[in-house]
Amino acid sequence: MKLAFIGLGQMGQGMAANLVKAGHEVAVYNRSVDKAAGLVAQGAKLAGTPAEAAKGAEAVFTMLADDKALEAVVFGADGLISTLAPGTVHVSSSTISVALAERLTEAHAKAGQGFVSAPVFGRPDAAAAAKLFIVAAGAPEVVARLQPLFNVLGQRSFVVAETPSSANLVKLSGNFLIGSVIESLSEAFALVAKGGIDPAAYLDLLTSTLFTAPVYKTYGGLIAGETFTPAGFAAPLGQKDVRLILAAGEALNVPLPLASLLRDRFLALLAQPGGAELDWSAISMLARRDSGQ
Amino acid sequence: MKLAFIGLGQMGQGMAANLVKAGHEVAVYNRSVDKAAGLVAQGAKLAGTPAEAAKGAEAVFTMLADDKALEAVVFGADGLISTLAPGTVHVSSSTISVALAERLTEAHAKAGQGFVSAPVFGRPDAAAAAKLFIVAAGAPEVVARLQPLFNVLGQRSFVVAETPSSANLVKLSGNFLIGSVIESLSEAFALVAKGGIDPAAYLDLLTSTLFTAPVYKTYGGLIAGETFTPAGFAAPLGQKDVRLILAAGEALNVPLPLASLLRDRFLALLAQPGGAELDWSAISMLARRDSGQ
Amino acid sequence: MKLAFIGLGQMGQGMAANLVKAGHEVAVYNRSVDKAAGLVAQGAKLAGTPAEAAKGAEAVFTMLADDKALEAVVFGADGLISTLAPGTVHVSSSTISVALAERLTEAHAKAGQGFVSAPVFGRPDAAAAAKLFIVAAGAPEVVARLQPLFNVLGQRSFVVAETPSSANLVKLSGNFLIGSVIESLSEAFALVAKGGIDPAAYLDLLTSTLFTAPVYKTYGGLIAGETFTPAGFAAPLGQKDVRLILAAGEALNVPLPLASLLRDRFLALLAQPGGAELDWSAISMLARRDSGQ
Amino acid sequence: MKLAFIGLGQMGQGMAANLVKAGHEVAVYNRSVDKAAGLVAQGAKLAGTPAEAAKGAEAVFTMLADDKALEAVVFGADGLISTLAPGTVHVSSSTISVALAERLTEAHAKAGQGFVSAPVFGRPDAAAAAKLFIVAAGAPEVVARLQPLFNVLGQRSFVVAETPSSANLVKLSGNFLIGSVIESLSEAFALVAKGGIDPAAYLDLLTSTLFTAPVYKTYGGLIAGETFTPAGFAAPLGQKDVRLILAAGEALNVPLPLASLLRDRFLALLAQPGGAELDWSAISMLARRDSGQ
Repeated sequence: MKLAFIGLGQMGQGMAANLVKAGHEVAVYNRSVDKAAGLVAQGAKLAGTPAEAAKGAEAVFTMLADDKALEAVVFGADGLISTLAPGTVHVSSSTISVALAERLTEAHAKAGQGFVSAPVFGRPDAAAAAKLFIVAAGAPEVVARLQPLFNVLGQRSFVVAETPSSANLVKLSGNFLIGSVIESLSEAFALVAKGGIDPAAYLDLLTSTLFTAPVYKTYGGLIAGETFTPAGFAAPLGQKDVRLILAAGEALNVPLPLASLLRDRFLALLAQPGGAELDWSAISMLARRDSGQ
Repeated sequence: MKLAFIGLGQMGQGMAANLVKAGHEVAVYNRSVDKAAGLVAQGAKLAGTPAEAAKGAEAVFTMLADDKALEAVVFGADGLISTLAPGTVHVSSSTISVALAERLTEAHAKAGQGFVSAPVFGRPDAAAAAKLFIVAAGAPEVVARLQPLFNVLGQRSFVVAETPSSANLVKLSGNFLIGSVIESLSEAFALVAKGGIDPAAYLDLLTSTLFTAPVYKTYGGLIAGETFTPAGFAAPLGQKDVRLILAAGEALNVPLPLASLLRDRFLALLAQPGGAELDWSAISMLARRDSGQ
Repeated sequence: MKLAFIGLGQMGQGMAANLVKAGHEVAVYNRSVDKAAGLVAQGAKLAGTPAEAAKGAEAVFTMLADDKALEAVVFGADGLISTLAPGTVHVSSSTISVALAERLTEAHAKAGQGFVSAPVFGRPDAAAAAKLFIVAAGAPEVVARLQPLFNVLGQRSFVVAETPSSANLVKLSGNFLIGSVIESLSEAFALVAKGGIDPAAYLDLLTSTLFTAPVYKTYGGLIAGETFTPAGFAAPLGQKDVRLILAAGEALNVPLPLASLLRDRFLALLAQPGGAELDWSAISMLARRDSGQ
Repeated sequence: MKLAFIGLGQMGQGMAANLVKAGHEVAVYNRSVDKAAGLVAQGAKLAGTPAEAAKGAEAVFTMLADDKALEAVVFGADGLISTLAPGTVHVSSSTISVALAERLTEAHAKAGQGFVSAPVFGRPDAAAAAKLFIVAAGAPEVVARLQPLFNVLGQRSFVVAETPSSANLVKLSGNFLIGSVIESLSEAFALVAKGGIDPAAYLDLLTSTLFTAPVYKTYGGLIAGETFTPAGFAAPLGQKDVRLILAAGEALNVPLPLASLLRDRFLALLAQPGGAELDWSAISMLARRDSGQ
């Protein structure tokens, strides 16, 4: 299939490479060109603009940092809305707001283009290993056409609704659940550590018994070891996702007190010198600090 | 070994039965005698008072509902403190306060008796199937002597400290972590359901990807299905454990904002007609109600 | 002085009338013309567009519902930015976001126009009676020129900074403090009422002793009497202001847990049928409901 | 009237002195005798035990630090329960738990003694100047007999109920409301200060407009000036009162999320080195610290 891939950060590089490897013809674009070198070596075609990348493609993937970056690519001068051929599908894998997904749905429909939200769960290593989980939502026949691509990108995909923004809501809710795990572990570790219990032994107990999910092992390990650099997922990204889930809740009149707690934690972390460079699990330092440790 | 087992609720019956099955000589006591019938049929000896049960035993297990029940058995007239022979070990498996564990440690030491805290993770079916996880703390040589009994009672035991109350702190922190899972799922389900996503499909997605731990499957299932009776762990017990973790935090000056949120949820649930009869996962009804669903 | 006044809601009408009464030449504009009738009868001149109202004016007041309404008047086609003569001052009295005030500051400066933020404290009756409190911020010489107008509009004005948006921050913080009073009273009333104490007697005690400020009398009375219609300040406005203070906190990395609590209260109120028509003090129904009353 | 006064801290000394000045015959007791010197010089009679002080008195006032101190005086060896003559009234002015007030009500009734709860609002200077506000609850005929004494002790008294513990609930709710003022001001000051606004000017604005109650002036001044020593009301007392209001809420199944927030603030303050010596308004340092200031 003729494809375009826009946004070659750590996630995008891995995803685009898997599409190339699967034999697709992939034109790639990134604001800073150097990120594309590896892909070009593997057979991708470098494009100078998003529009050039998208030219003739059946589907255009975007994997960008945030709403603003995606808005620029879609609504900016020579953006996808004004340049995509009718019938082309924009597949948005970025973690963006529900509101932007709704706006994209409307704008692409008006322009006779397709739009599917397909955000993913997984870190860069999972993207590279095609082990992502893909949450997709869009018109059933369009999603069906994309299914072979999802199979190439991840270990499993879930079609959650026909309204694209539903996939974004699910993605954001997942990050909220992970953030909740971090906060709950943070408080538990602060408490037991002040009570004299060895954090590593405590972590082993938790993850051998009730909390066997990888998310507890990963974040419990970071918290117990106070290992917050290099950031696997930096604090500002965590703060952004909490902001987006709160905004989604606000739009639907759904109070989210635990998300509100996370919000205040992330702001407190970002307010500390160097906080923005740390992994989002560094909010655990706040529970510990508040306990005088 | 000659043992006593006091407190034959759903948990205690299963535990005592496994001790009998393993060939130990077990005298049992329960306030209401009928709970003991099955055990007597299996070979346990029925005692008319805790003191009578404890007579000649090397170790006396207690598995009672709360601090008050255990205080009555230990500090009441003819209680364990005044009747246990020197050298006898009291093994407390109840989910009690850190403060009571500290008081028991001191009182038993003063009376020349041993004391080990050994609370457990697991529901009645795990108790019956010897699949409990046991969290033990106490003097190393005493804990070592008890190890064969722990092996009979559970699938694994963890010795977390020499101070008995540390085991209670860990146990309470575990229930706090489970309560946190319930609250986070409650908010996530309220949000995605109002956003039009099917709860069952959402649950499948969560538990197939990031949240594979049984605790997410169990509580996610109860929340998605709104199945709060019969209560596997009733709301008043959840409220009690949150109270105890907050009390432990207060004693150590450790703020626990997520536990505070849980506290207010449980009180709101108990304030509703019939709330006290529901499973503790019924706090999810509050997030849903607050969202107008 | 030749003035324009744009936005003739309940607040704007009273303010514009006082400017007319003080002998100023005031051109008025409102989207729905009928709101202007009374003012025209008093001597104001009706304009068909904001630009027409602003023509030849030394200062243009805006008193509009929210960011969106003000943006339309300022940045829309024939908006103030593109039509105000150089040197003209835009005085914004609306309760708007800090971010919009910053944007206005920059845009007006670029266009050679003046900009002063002058939000007010006070309800419509205070606006009519010239009893408002005015919080002003802007270039000192410009604010000084406006001072006689502030004297006509309110009982006292406070110049808080040279950066216009500071006045908005202060205004929003004031509404946050009022919201906090409402929440604290809500919880206190829920508690003492369930404890059997008469709400009216309790209110009398509070407001005769420690809490003599009018804000406690006003909102305590509404809460004790459960009088939430007609809305003096409707729930959606309360929700909006909490959103704006949280956004201001987010921009500065200032966590505001009490504002987060208010946020969730307002969303829960708006999620209830009819909630949007009630006074913002109706969040007190939530504390009462959560206590089973 | 023949009276006894037990507990001569800063508050008790002022109150007892006013009773003496009014011509009553007052026997006083305090654990450390030196606190009684001034009162004896004014005409009070020094007693060696609570029972000796109470001998022949019509009413016995207690003004002690906490539940524990009052329990010792009432239920201890030679305590008031076992030594007060039938018909004597115990007037408890301490800020104690609702639960202890209930226990005292029952125990005194059983012993044929009277019991009235009469906690007060006001600091030591108000106690000395007879400017306290007294919140009284008890049997109407007994309260009526005490009214002349209340008139001597304070500027106004409020009879809120016939159940003594209701007065304690009201008193605790008042301290909760003050704590809420402190928290709301703390967040507001953290925000506007980070926004570049002068705290003193901001305080002047608040207290000249909407928040004219003395409580805003007092605590706003402490927060703006960061003056937390000497403590007018020390952090551990604030923490205690929040604990008691939360316990009262728990007994009645009334969730109090704002009180929960205060709880966590006070624990965080007490966890800091030197925190226990500061005024309770020092929780404002936490909002400021969390904002990186």
